[in-house]
Amino acid sequence: MAQWMWKFGEFEIYHNLLVHNRRQQYGWPEPPVWKLYAPESVVRFRKTVTTEGGTFRISACGNTATTVGNVFPDIRKYGGKKEITLEPGTTEITITVSNPDTFPCLYIEGVIESGEGWMADDCSGEFTPVAAGAWADSAQKTPEVFPFAYEKLAYTQKRPVKGGWLFDFGKETFAKTRITGLPDGADVQVNFGESEEEALDDTWSVIHFSVPGGVAPTEKTPDDPCRRDDVSRLWQREEDGAVAVSPVAFRYIWVGPAALALPTASAKPEGSGQMPAPAATMQTPPHITAEYEYLPLTRRGSFTCTEEIVQRVWDVAAYTFHLNCREFFLDGIKRDRWVWSADAYQSLFVNRYLFFDPEIEKRTLIALGGKQPFVMHINTIADYSFFWIISLYEYYRTYGDTAFLAQIWPQLRAVMDFCIARTDDDGFLRGRDGDWIFIDWAPMDKTGAVCGEQILYAKAMECYAKIAELTGHSGDGLGAVAMELQDKIFVKFYDKEKGVFIDSFESGKRNVTRQSNILAYLFLPCGPTLRRQLYERVILNDGVAQITTPYFKFYENQVHCMEGNGTLLETSIREYYGSMLATGATSLYEEYDPTLSGTKHYAMYGNPYEKSLCHAWSASPVYLLGAYRLGVKNTGIAYQSFEVSPNPGDLAEFSGVVPLPDGEVRVSVTPEEIRAVSTVPGGVFCYGEIRQAMEPGKEIAVARR
Amino acid sequence: MAQWMWKFGEFEIYHNLLVHNRRQQYGWPEPPVWKLYAPESVVRFRKTVTTEGGTFRISACGNTATTVGNVFPDIRKYGGKKEITLEPGTTEITITVSNPDTFPCLYIEGVIESGEGWMADDCSGEFTPVAAGAWADSAQKTPEVFPFAYEKLAYTQKRPVKGGWLFDFGKETFAKTRITGLPDGADVQVNFGESEEEALDDTWSVIHFSVPGGVAPTEKTPDDPCRRDDVSRLWQREEDGAVAVSPVAFRYIWVGPAALALPTASAKPEGSGQMPAPAATMQTPPHITAEYEYLPLTRRGSFTCTEEIVQRVWDVAAYTFHLNCREFFLDGIKRDRWVWSADAYQSLFVNRYLFFDPEIEKRTLIALGGKQPFVMHINTIADYSFFWIISLYEYYRTYGDTAFLAQIWPQLRAVMDFCIARTDDDGFLRGRDGDWIFIDWAPMDKTGAVCGEQILYAKAMECYAKIAELTGHSGDGLGAVAMELQDKIFVKFYDKEKGVFIDSFESGKRNVTRQSNILAYLFLPCGPTLRRQLYERVILNDGVAQITTPYFKFYENQVHCMEGNGTLLETSIREYYGSMLATGATSLYEEYDPTLSGTKHYAMYGNPYEKSLCHAWSASPVYLLGAYRLGVKNTGIAYQSFEVSPNPGDLAEFSGVVPLPDGEVRVSVTPEEIRAVSTVPGGVFCYGEIRQAMEPGKEIAVARR
Repeated sequence: MAQWMWKFGEFEIYHNLLVHNRRQQYGWPEPPVWKLYAPESVVRFRKTVTTEGGTFRISACGNTATTVGNVFPDIRKYGGKKEITLEPGTTEITITVSNPDTFPCLYIEGVIESGEGWMADDCSGEFTPVAAGAWADSAQKTPEVFPFAYEKLAYTQKRPVKGGWLFDFGKETFAKTRITGLPDGADVQVNFGESEEEALDDTWSVIHFSVPGGVAPTEKTPDDPCRRDDVSRLWQREEDGAVAVSPVAFRYIWVGPAALALPTASAKPEGSGQMPAPAATMQTPPHITAEYEYLPLTRRGSFTCTEEIVQRVWDVAAYTFHLNCREFFLDGIKRDRWVWSADAYQSLFVNRYLFFDPEIEKRTLIALGGKQPFVMHINTIADYSFFWIISLYEYYRTYGDTAFLAQIWPQLRAVMDFCIARTDDDGFLRGRDGDWIFIDWAPMDKTGAVCGEQILYAKAMECYAKIAELTGHSGDGLGAVAMELQDKIFVKFYDKEKGVFIDSFESGKRNVTRQSNILAYLFLPCGPTLRRQLYERVILNDGVAQITTPYFKFYENQVHCMEGNGTLLETSIREYYGSMLATGATSLYEEYDPTLSGTKHYAMYGNPYEKSLCHAWSASPVYLLGAYRLGVKNTGIAYQSFEVSPNPGDLAEFSGVVPLPDGEVRVSVTPEEIRAVSTVPGGVFCYGEIRQAMEPGKEIAVARR
Repeated sequence: MAQWMWKFGEFEIYHNLLVHNRRQQYGWPEPPVWKLYAPESVVRFRKTVTTEGGTFRISACGNTATTVGNVFPDIRKYGGKKEITLEPGTTEITITVSNPDTFPCLYIEGVIESGEGWMADDCSGEFTPVAAGAWADSAQKTPEVFPFAYEKLAYTQKRPVKGGWLFDFGKETFAKTRITGLPDGADVQVNFGESEEEALDDTWSVIHFSVPGGVAPTEKTPDDPCRRDDVSRLWQREEDGAVAVSPVAFRYIWVGPAALALPTASAKPEGSGQMPAPAATMQTPPHITAEYEYLPLTRRGSFTCTEEIVQRVWDVAAYTFHLNCREFFLDGIKRDRWVWSADAYQSLFVNRYLFFDPEIEKRTLIALGGKQPFVMHINTIADYSFFWIISLYEYYRTYGDTAFLAQIWPQLRAVMDFCIARTDDDGFLRGRDGDWIFIDWAPMDKTGAVCGEQILYAKAMECYAKIAELTGHSGDGLGAVAMELQDKIFVKFYDKEKGVFIDSFESGKRNVTRQSNILAYLFLPCGPTLRRQLYERVILNDGVAQITTPYFKFYENQVHCMEGNGTLLETSIREYYGSMLATGATSLYEEYDPTLSGTKHYAMYGNPYEKSLCHAWSASPVYLLGAYRLGVKNTGIAYQSFEVSPNPGDLAEFSGVVPLPDGEVRVSVTPEEIRAVSTVPGGVFCYGEIRQAMEPGKEIAVARR
């Protein structure tokens, strides 16, 4: 079956470019803040084929030139011809595709077909296996258009507010919309909102625009002399007077009379909802049609619980996560709508217990890795370069896919070379000009070498060395360097007196944070005794400042679960997430403070509605319930061995499915018993003292204690 | 005065991408055959400004985000706002521009202005001085559109031929055209021709297309599922039924009934003019309007001669050269319409005696140098990488512009690093997989290390070392390596017995070519005695195979002139060029063989009209007459010292002007006397035994001998 094909990585580089140019902020597209990479514009596709003769047909994104044969004088040049007949025998086909506008891709059907087996280069002579899209299986399904699925959506309520009309779609969604029935000639304002209040705020709704009554918006005005096909265009007026809006995140849409006063993003509001008095009221409601735009993914994992709030949190987490699974793992669908390496790292864990989709993981890792020359950390953050490398190994551990590692190896090497070049003589990596040493939004002693940064660097080198070995490359001894660095971390950052890790050894302050010790717990080779010690002295110690970001809560919860802390997960679900849902959340917020009330829940970064109300990193209950209640964990490569250790925790009754590469594990827990079955071999059932190999299809049932 | 600005190099990288996608061949766009580079899509512009307060206005190609101030909490973020008011004082402005469609550029007018003094980066943190366009001095003059000039052109003749109509524009030109009055519903064929015969050949005219009567061509058909704004689009039907054609090279245009049989480029014609019988004849002639598209350059050099053929050759050479001076120095305007490094090197010499325009030289050198990672020789040819480096130093020698050298240094270094990485342990550079060791289209012994390649490599390293010193960089000792390599070349390639250079020392064949010895003459540090010896034993030796390409004739003619060979230049002009003009040439051909006749003059590469009839490298008479008859030669840096050594050669009477950076030299030669005057100091007048310093404005007159 023929498939569209492209040079490995180019599909992701192209769509990453588009994705990063679609963020909207207060009436304008918000440009990216890190380096983006462009696709190659000329790609040669090559294959040696043996046929009995016959015709093939070329479709391409770009101009083509086809050459058949590679030995003079038997080379035949067909120029841009799209239908070519081969004589019987073996010959080499080279098709050059040039496309400076999007990216070169090629579809061939007939006596030969495009897809696996072809090689491609960027005219550098370095031919590597092409990538192809299983979904791109007809000439019409061009990879220039990302293969989203669409479903019609209807609003659940429409009511007049503030001189205009408020549409409620019932829950957070991501959809393209079309607004019709607008008053002729009048200026109209359209605000999107994750909350009702946001939709009613002409100035501070993150996604909004004004439709001037008189000007056809796609016409170029003197303000905009440039001739471009704007990928960041939010809306355009259609021929019948409708306004078509590109897909964005929202639950509410308000359409009303426009004040047409463009805001200054830096001018802080004195209160939300501030706006000049509307010019007029809108008597007749406009109509809105919407189409949910989503990535068609199959939910392979499930979780069912008799406790309603747990069930609801899992359901909303799964929905939140799905909304953020698009071209790539996004951080949030309203804001930033970008791809962040550490957010993506956490999404790997959730994906494993919900979709088990390797494709989005590969796409995300390619997009994050970028191209060469690699001259700035991923997302400008040193830790995020390390998380990218660690994620590559996590990807391999989950799917056992060495072919992907081989393809991404040159970029992995470029990223590692960049990190090594920024390493000091003592082996520690300190921030250089322009580097962001992030770790977490929290007070931390970042003097000189920062503990968490070194821990992640060592782990990244360890992963790099393993990937090098798997792909037959030299690891440049980085496996040993990683071990040396880990030793140095123990020597320099482990405070013997306190028995925990300190942030910095250079300041003399001996500052202790949860962040440094959580990273040590998760990424340093600590034995169980030391782990327990860190857990007790730091994580369970209320004297150490609490984690405030859901980002780091993810890692803290991992530690809690790994330490078998039996009720904290449920407490978090019932209290933190439960009260979040009680505010009316239909997706999980970027951050949540139960002590706040009203619209204060929506404020962040100093602006009233800048918080993302649908954020991937808050979907961790899907992962934690799967890994630590259903208890299914990969213990080998691609689940060739895995553990099934159901843990009732504080829950009365639940059941669920955890996906494996070629099968699944089903677990059910009742007040009386625990049952588990796997469809594939490799599992070990663990419960209390019981350790028992699982036979495929054969259910194990034990009494609950 | 405000100017559009962009990150250094991006304007050229962008337009180079477009240029290389506009070549047409036999009904299709012909994709490039080497790696092309894409512009950055996100660029940050930054400047610290001091004002008394006031407003500035932003125009951009792309989306913008503006930040004023860089010290928390006094940072003000304006998002995409286009009009911003500054308070009095000093502050840092950062404007991020994102543009994934063309390239980011910015224009600011008001209390602050865009242009020199701003810095830019690609989010890598490496801020470097921006580039700006002196011509781009209003918001409307966006750098996305190359600033060509246009003039209406009329055809000189229209007559019915072959069932259609042939339009003759009187001479070779480059123009956009608009064809009106086409028969309704009928399929039409449009052929462009540099010759009449080419225009009449539906299959083998290099630029041609068919207009199907029924299909609106800008509509996407099932054959072309891709959604792209095609920069290579040759033609489109306009609303009034006219066909608008993108600018191409031609003298003739034939419009007639289409057979609509698309050719196979590889199917060789049995004779030119082959085509199926036309469907019908076209009774009413269509109408064609044309607009000459050209780079507005001022002719600062001139040459006037009483001998008509010499005058005509100079005039046609100057016209030919101007047609090929566009975004960059092109090789030919019909084919390839690409930028080749060694062609560009020769164009530097012609430019000096005609336009003296540094801008096109810089644009060309930036476009050729490309970006990083540099993974393949320029134009895939090793010698062409060397010519690029040599050209950079030639550029400096002509204009004394170290600022440009400083800007292009990172790319120069990348190219040199690439060459060094491909050097063998013995210091010689041999072709690696994918490298093209070209030198010339001629039988040559290319076993192992090739003589000419080493000579150019040594010269390139010498130039690199000089540029490193000029820009304050380490030359990595390559000046010494160059000298060592030159010594090795003498040891290994200079055949003591023959007293000349051989192509290869590894084959044992001791093959002697003009090419190796001409390159030794021009680029090795040979003394006058050895030069004379090479000249006599090789160049004047009919036993050594003649040069057959005008490309290498250029270098051979340099040698003839440097050896003072008094009549060969005139012989070449009168015989080679004279008989070329006698075939009806209105511009100079890529190649010319006086022994051929009729349409045989137009054939090349096995196809009947593939020869370029307007080729830059054939414009050398402009350079040779200026440098060796008017006799003006730069002997220092930027003509701080120069020689004026008029040489009547075989000419009776001529005069001319040679441009200098801030002035010019006028020379006139009559049968009786020789006069020369310079408007600036630094000149030395040389004639026979006379060597005399020239005072500005003071004419020197001596008797002709």
